[in-house]
Amino acid sequence: MPALKEHELNKQRDILQQYFHTVRTQSVQYCSPLEIEDYVIQTMADASPPKWHLAHTSWFFETFVLQVYADDYRPFHPRYDALFNSYYVTHGDPFPRPRRGLLSRPTVKEVMRYRIHVDTQMARLLQRVDERHWGDMIRLTLLGINHEQQHQELLLTDIKYNFYQNPMRPAYRDYRAVPARPPQPLQWREFAGGVYDIGHNGADFAYDNEGPPHKVYINPYRLASRLVSNAEYAAFIDDGGYRQPELWYSEAWAMLNAERWQAPLYWEWQDGEWRHFTLEGMRALEPDAPVYHVSQFEADAYARWAGKRLPSEFEWEVAAGRQKITGNLRRDNVLRPLSASATAGIAAGAAAGATADSSGGQGQAQSGQAPSLQQLYGDVWEWTASPYAAYPGYKPAGGSIGEYNGKFMSSQIVLRGGSFATPADHIRPSYRNFFYPKDRWQFSGIRLADEA
Amino acid sequence: MPALKEHELNKQRDILQQYFHTVRTQSVQYCSPLEIEDYVIQTMADASPPKWHLAHTSWFFETFVLQVYADDYRPFHPRYDALFNSYYVTHGDPFPRPRRGLLSRPTVKEVMRYRIHVDTQMARLLQRVDERHWGDMIRLTLLGINHEQQHQELLLTDIKYNFYQNPMRPAYRDYRAVPARPPQPLQWREFAGGVYDIGHNGADFAYDNEGPPHKVYINPYRLASRLVSNAEYAAFIDDGGYRQPELWYSEAWAMLNAERWQAPLYWEWQDGEWRHFTLEGMRALEPDAPVYHVSQFEADAYARWAGKRLPSEFEWEVAAGRQKITGNLRRDNVLRPLSASATAGIAAGAAAGATADSSGGQGQAQSGQAPSLQQLYGDVWEWTASPYAAYPGYKPAGGSIGEYNGKFMSSQIVLRGGSFATPADHIRPSYRNFFYPKDRWQFSGIRLADEA
Amino acid sequence: MPALKEHELNKQRDILQQYFHTVRTQSVQYCSPLEIEDYVIQTMADASPPKWHLAHTSWFFETFVLQVYADDYRPFHPRYDALFNSYYVTHGDPFPRPRRGLLSRPTVKEVMRYRIHVDTQMARLLQRVDERHWGDMIRLTLLGINHEQQHQELLLTDIKYNFYQNPMRPAYRDYRAVPARPPQPLQWREFAGGVYDIGHNGADFAYDNEGPPHKVYINPYRLASRLVSNAEYAAFIDDGGYRQPELWYSEAWAMLNAERWQAPLYWEWQDGEWRHFTLEGMRALEPDAPVYHVSQFEADAYARWAGKRLPSEFEWEVAAGRQKITGNLRRDNVLRPLSASATAGIAAGAAAGATADSSGGQGQAQSGQAPSLQQLYGDVWEWTASPYAAYPGYKPAGGSIGEYNGKFMSSQIVLRGGSFATPADHIRPSYRNFFYPKDRWQFSGIRLADEA
Amino acid sequence: MPALKEHELNKQRDILQQYFHTVRTQSVQYCSPLEIEDYVIQTMADASPPKWHLAHTSWFFETFVLQVYADDYRPFHPRYDALFNSYYVTHGDPFPRPRRGLLSRPTVKEVMRYRIHVDTQMARLLQRVDERHWGDMIRLTLLGINHEQQHQELLLTDIKYNFYQNPMRPAYRDYRAVPARPPQPLQWREFAGGVYDIGHNGADFAYDNEGPPHKVYINPYRLASRLVSNAEYAAFIDDGGYRQPELWYSEAWAMLNAERWQAPLYWEWQDGEWRHFTLEGMRALEPDAPVYHVSQFEADAYARWAGKRLPSEFEWEVAAGRQKITGNLRRDNVLRPLSASATAGIAAGAAAGATADSSGGQGQAQSGQAPSLQQLYGDVWEWTASPYAAYPGYKPAGGSIGEYNGKFMSSQIVLRGGSFATPADHIRPSYRNFFYPKDRWQFSGIRLADEA
Repeated sequence: MPALKEHELNKQRDILQQYFHTVRTQSVQYCSPLEIEDYVIQTMADASPPKWHLAHTSWFFETFVLQVYADDYRPFHPRYDALFNSYYVTHGDPFPRPRRGLLSRPTVKEVMRYRIHVDTQMARLLQRVDERHWGDMIRLTLLGINHEQQHQELLLTDIKYNFYQNPMRPAYRDYRAVPARPPQPLQWREFAGGVYDIGHNGADFAYDNEGPPHKVYINPYRLASRLVSNAEYAAFIDDGGYRQPELWYSEAWAMLNAERWQAPLYWEWQDGEWRHFTLEGMRALEPDAPVYHVSQFEADAYARWAGKRLPSEFEWEVAAGRQKITGNLRRDNVLRPLSASATAGIAAGAAAGATADSSGGQGQAQSGQAPSLQQLYGDVWEWTASPYAAYPGYKPAGGSIGEYNGKFMSSQIVLRGGSFATPADHIRPSYRNFFYPKDRWQFSGIRLADEA
Repeated sequence: MPALKEHELNKQRDILQQYFHTVRTQSVQYCSPLEIEDYVIQTMADASPPKWHLAHTSWFFETFVLQVYADDYRPFHPRYDALFNSYYVTHGDPFPRPRRGLLSRPTVKEVMRYRIHVDTQMARLLQRVDERHWGDMIRLTLLGINHEQQHQELLLTDIKYNFYQNPMRPAYRDYRAVPARPPQPLQWREFAGGVYDIGHNGADFAYDNEGPPHKVYINPYRLASRLVSNAEYAAFIDDGGYRQPELWYSEAWAMLNAERWQAPLYWEWQDGEWRHFTLEGMRALEPDAPVYHVSQFEADAYARWAGKRLPSEFEWEVAAGRQKITGNLRRDNVLRPLSASATAGIAAGAAAGATADSSGGQGQAQSGQAPSLQQLYGDVWEWTASPYAAYPGYKPAGGSIGEYNGKFMSSQIVLRGGSFATPADHIRPSYRNFFYPKDRWQFSGIRLADEA
Repeated sequence: MPALKEHELNKQRDILQQYFHTVRTQSVQYCSPLEIEDYVIQTMADASPPKWHLAHTSWFFETFVLQVYADDYRPFHPRYDALFNSYYVTHGDPFPRPRRGLLSRPTVKEVMRYRIHVDTQMARLLQRVDERHWGDMIRLTLLGINHEQQHQELLLTDIKYNFYQNPMRPAYRDYRAVPARPPQPLQWREFAGGVYDIGHNGADFAYDNEGPPHKVYINPYRLASRLVSNAEYAAFIDDGGYRQPELWYSEAWAMLNAERWQAPLYWEWQDGEWRHFTLEGMRALEPDAPVYHVSQFEADAYARWAGKRLPSEFEWEVAAGRQKITGNLRRDNVLRPLSASATAGIAAGAAAGATADSSGGQGQAQSGQAPSLQQLYGDVWEWTASPYAAYPGYKPAGGSIGEYNGKFMSSQIVLRGGSFATPADHIRPSYRNFFYPKDRWQFSGIRLADEA
Repeated sequence: MPALKEHELNKQRDILQQYFHTVRTQSVQYCSPLEIEDYVIQTMADASPPKWHLAHTSWFFETFVLQVYADDYRPFHPRYDALFNSYYVTHGDPFPRPRRGLLSRPTVKEVMRYRIHVDTQMARLLQRVDERHWGDMIRLTLLGINHEQQHQELLLTDIKYNFYQNPMRPAYRDYRAVPARPPQPLQWREFAGGVYDIGHNGADFAYDNEGPPHKVYINPYRLASRLVSNAEYAAFIDDGGYRQPELWYSEAWAMLNAERWQAPLYWEWQDGEWRHFTLEGMRALEPDAPVYHVSQFEADAYARWAGKRLPSEFEWEVAAGRQKITGNLRRDNVLRPLSASATAGIAAGAAAGATADSSGGQGQAQSGQAPSLQQLYGDVWEWTASPYAAYPGYKPAGGSIGEYNGKFMSSQIVLRGGSFATPADHIRPSYRNFFYPKDRWQFSGIRLADEA
């Protein structure tokens, strides 16, 4: 990385610090409706206590940034390293995931002190770290920020799941009526076959699993113009979709029977109609809203019932590459994040050794005539048919940070596009989310695909 | 029940109300060292969250007293009946026990409001209930008070277990040095064989499982003058006691291997010595203190290793009947409970229809020369060899209250004598505590017996 | 043991050898209706493959007799010691019980060769063993014979259970109509309270768990004159007995719900009537025949529903001590066992050092006027209310043989009286069978008791 | 399908009948070393009893051919339909897979009678079925034959697994020394990148999951010239490969720890060297022989340790398409199957409506200069990196037969190339075998790949 001019470096320090501080504050803000008791509980192994999320994201900066670059850094507490290590087994022996809810200590107050400690030390480091480490600082701080944004969404999915286990069905927030949108007629957008470029190719931040960029041959295909709606999914249920084994993978059918699935997670049949649990408590279903909290097993069975299929992640990415990143994503009012372009500039600097504008990059349209897709970003994550696997030539980073993505490339499925709980500056056409095909507690829905 | 004179009734109302209020306040006081987070967690199915104990004991008064005798009583919250019903299945469908720790709501503050509501209504009812219900009021209120005292001890055993799951090992209270006692040489007290009267026979309060009084033939036997000490138990471990199958019941040996038992619960081998987890945190073992947190399986194996056996519950009761109820029991400083004799008077009134002094009653010596036994009451509960079973002619009460004791008379073992956490006014010679022979998280220890 | 005259010893050798040979042959005869495949399977952990029973009973003689007393004995196969050791952990590391059905080898043919080998060596040893070991030989050979008789009954219970898992419901033997007996009106026999002698006290063979003889105080009580019938039990089911939690112990209710019990094991509701699986296949229920294949949980719930209770094992023994051992027990036609008196003579000799007639002993009437009880011996085992525990002063034998009975004295329940599958020369008033209260695959039924 | 000349049809009837008969007889022959007892046992849910394999393959013909095309066909036994249905849930309710080993009946003899019945009826039908059904008959009979061939390999993998659970380690067959082959130096074969044709495209038999043919873009890549050897895999173990979490997927690491994997299945460390269990019993490892009985988790970890990766199934297929199908595959001596070309002719006729020679077809080289790969076919199946998924445009057949392949396209991994137990006429370049990545009991090994 060539030498930066002094004022250029200082400007970058300020931007990154502001970005860091904004995202860190958002996490705490997300928890503001919670009672102390709500921070503690864990109601399944996959859903961590809110308190744990707040601590773990701090541990991430402490472990991968402060411990490495802050010369005289001393950990806030000697036990926290093991307690808040999520899964970095090359780093140490993490406290068992299913037991996170068994810990009443540290208290919420202590976790908040831990956060402030880390925030203070990070602010100090970002202002003072030597220029020769600046590239690494950008790279790792952006990784930590994006990591924290992922946990912000998990905070919501986990709080929702936790609350649902309580027969009193507490609400996370008050209900605010959203103006009804007229139903969108489902249309089919067609895409030509051929060899396409896939993967992240720009200088702005992306996870390692989005690369290397490579080519994929795709048959001609079609995508539905919008997500599958609650009303459409209810018709699948009405038609006996959960009782027809020919619609389901063998392991999906076993799961359905073992867990007695009869509808998406959170749906309840009450007094002759479907209702569902939301962050605002139990509500009537809106027929035109996208169905969510379905597993990939259910998404696949629905598609088969409809005579269609799920898209591959490549089909989705090709379509998305032609559209602007807009939609029902999270845009915080009080704490508006930095504009993506500003941060992209920093990331580009880190990657390319220059602050030059990240012209081109990944995500722009590859052809002039882009078929328009609704609800592509935001609303709910879209299950694909694609097992989560390494792209050709993929190599994880060295050290414990290499465990971030690569070791999960087995038995999971890619989701694309983000949800209403995904920050707008966190999503990209090449972004690959992943969960097990049986998982239902994420904000996951369905877009249909078909042969052209 | 014959008519009481007005001032007599009012005096009883005051005494019972004061007793009720004292015990209720103690429960809250027990939790005073806790953080909000500590009230929420449940670390095994048998150990309930402190918050749940506080609510359940209130539910008991609400369900079995207020709902029955307070004409216009309205439940504090419609959901609490199911949430805080422990196991009364004839009353309703209790919330599953292993899931009590999954509930963040009601919050501690709400539970405290629930308690105050119940306390207030109980105070009102005790002052106003019609005379013709007074006998039942005494009986059920005393049952509720004793029930709450049981949960006070469980609060401590459960908090201790919960804290131990946390690698930071929080302490419930600060350590206070107890003046060292000189080791007591173990002596053997001999008891003659013959037919003995067993069971509770007085007018004061006792649980239904302590009766009916009946006769038991007992062979001549001997009891150890004191409890087995930590040092003695450590010698058993050193001698390979946990590796000799011939010392263990078949199911005990299976449990030992499955759970990898190598010492009592809470013992840890550190730097060449045994330490153990206490309510004051990790501490060195005191060699002369009684061993506790052993299962009956371990108590039995120890006795076999020592060439002795565990006493039957009848042998214990015969010996105890000759001694005063004194020992290392709980005597609250700030909130001193009413004297046992005062309350005994009330209970006698309830049972016998008169306030006459409960002269005689159960528990007094049956012979003049009583061999003196140390640590008989208090310190730790003493495992017996006796399966918990109904006494001849035992019939549980009708209604849901009949589920209090009788339905557990299968596969459990009787413990006798109380512990340092048992209120001094709560224990009797005829008192039968019971747990599964594998249970270790109670304050349970060992007294040896032998043939005479 | 004083010197026997030569011809006296030889006579004893012949008697014992004949007894041994008879019982050994019966085991093989029991399996004669089986196909090779039937010998192999194990359909639950508690039910061993027939092949295993045949081998294990041989292992018992090999291990505890031949290896000890036959100087030059060499085991039939080096692996069999571990494979066919049931639970003697002080002897070695037994092959895991739930995996016995995973072994196709040794084949049935090889097991039969193993039996013949052991039989031959035993015959040789019984004829030649030195006189000074003769007392031990009698004691251990009788133990092995009784052990084999126990496994003969288990062979039947296990085969029945195995066959029932097969939807084709194979029959073990052809159906032979039994002449219908007129229903016996249930009457109540009364017994006086007082101190009774309990336990085995004679010179004939008994297990160690039947002693030492000791005194027990018993309240006045009554016993039903006969067993509970199928028709009576069906009335309990019709009355909702399986849906009323107040009739069940807490752990019984949990079991009932977990296993969805709705009737005894093997009962099926078909075309408006109860049928049940028998050794002769699916058959209609005979209303007057004793109900069997109930757990103690069900026996206890039935008794509670009937306003009665189960007898204690002492109440049963007192009643049985006054009656002759007669009833629906197994008496083999082809291979008639030696008369009990002849073998009793041997056992008496072993115990007392003389062949003197076992006058007195345990089992005879203790009073002149014996109330007559039907179905006391044979038909089905009778669940008692008594947890299986050591009698006062009980000490198991030294060595591995000490594991025979004592280590199971935890969490199990005593059954009394034998079944139609129990050899007539195998049962006694003091005989204590034991199983877990949840167990249903044994031939176990119900006799009611009550206070007098 | 156009009309066939009479003699042409008859010739086809004879060829198909001979093929059917040959393969059916081979299955029985495979079991000839077994004792009756060996046919019965099932030692894990995935491994069925040999008896079940013999019956299920007959059920397949009975259900999908005889019941459909033989007008007056009556099932051999009314219960067999449910008992021997493997997983066709749209056809009925299959007997639970993990319980197959609990059935002693039908006996082996009865199963053999079932086979003869089906064989006889099939022979009759093949000779008589109307010409208009002849195309379907060919298609379904070939499917049944291939299905039976798959089960022949499973017979061996399951027998091996079953035998290994027995501490006596029985051998399936005698050991015959194979002449030692000199070690093959590992070389790297390079393949050009580009768009390739993938999938089965000929008229001869293939499973539906091998199509439709389609295009795939592949980066330039390299394949190892031979399989990974035992010696090479042992070096991985020696280097601590099973203790380095960074080599393993997250779920692989969890499995390794839960199952305590330390080496491939069947490997045992004895007296300072690795030995392994084979169909000929315990044997020393041959260093140069291919390692097998590894999971895909182990294959992947090995590849990562070696700095390489596993090939995709497309990379494998492209390489295989250029080579002859030759190698260490099964070629029965006594019962030589028909030549592949003859049967291919039938299949071609069925598909194309003509008996014309299947010139071209699938599997021939796509370029002139084919890099030579050793052990490509036969020896052991080769784990790929490819999740088992539908090819673009794949639609399963209608009816229950559609459950054959499609419903397993979730969470499994593709293996390629066949093993020493795969019939030579059963394998193809496009053949896709599939198992879960954790599975180790198949004959599965490793070929490395790398970027070019």
